[in-house]
Amino acid sequence: MLKVEHIGIAVKNLQSANELFAKLLGSEHYKIESVESEGVSTSFFMMGETKIELLEATHSDSPIAKFIEKRGEGIHHIAFEVADIETEMKRLQAEGFILLNETPKKGADNKLICFLHPKSTNGVLVELCQEIKK
Amino acid sequence: MLKVEHIGIAVKNLQSANELFAKLLGSEHYKIESVESEGVSTSFFMMGETKIELLEATHSDSPIAKFIEKRGEGIHHIAFEVADIETEMKRLQAEGFILLNETPKKGADNKLICFLHPKSTNGVLVELCQEIKK
Repeated sequence: MLKVEHIGIAVKNLQSANELFAKLLGSEHYKIESVESEGVSTSFFMMGETKIELLEATHSDSPIAKFIEKRGEGIHHIAFEVADIETEMKRLQAEGFILLNETPKKGADNKLICFLHPKSTNGVLVELCQEIKK
Repeated sequence: MLKVEHIGIAVKNLQSANELFAKLLGSEHYKIESVESEGVSTSFFMMGETKIELLEATHSDSPIAKFIEKRGEGIHHIAFEVADIETEMKRLQAEGFILLNETPKKGADNKLICFLHPKSTNGVLVELCQEIKK
């Protein structure tokens, strides 16, 4: 694991959350991106070497919609940047962590990603992400 | 705001969580510190420029004990480093954010800290922190 790549925050309304977080962080979001396969619209703020990713559900079956229904708005996951996602997935699986996907999948922001089940990580939804090389 | 200084994670048992996070992050915690005024024992891992802070309650009235009782273990707060905490507190208060303490208080890791009420920040418990200069 190299660094905290981003922190994901579940919000009900991306537009009003963008305004709120711009006031909080003192800088504007620099991009918006939809990931249809995950049922989310996302926006990104830069904060040092870490991004703040706001996540709005695009439909009621989206994991973000279910998270907000159960727990309300708030911090959803932490994503760590890794050099080689497949190697890291194998290492963590051997350590007893539960992977939510067996092979890396395409996420927002040009990344290959994998989530770990929170029941294996003290309740923390952890994402691994690796930049897709062009 | 300068960077994500740390991410706080509420855990039931600091010793077993230290072992789990050492496996997850691939590195050991580098210090343990109790903050009696906050009712917590903490341990710290370094991850790039950001720390992962594990928080265990030292008594049943501790905010961490109450958090775990209500929501279970998991991500508790995000802390942003600021250059001048009093200036930042005034700025955020003027923007409509609710401060949980009116003056900075002493936190773990040689910091002056202030929390913002999650109801003013989309459900995210936000901490501001400034290094105490020697």
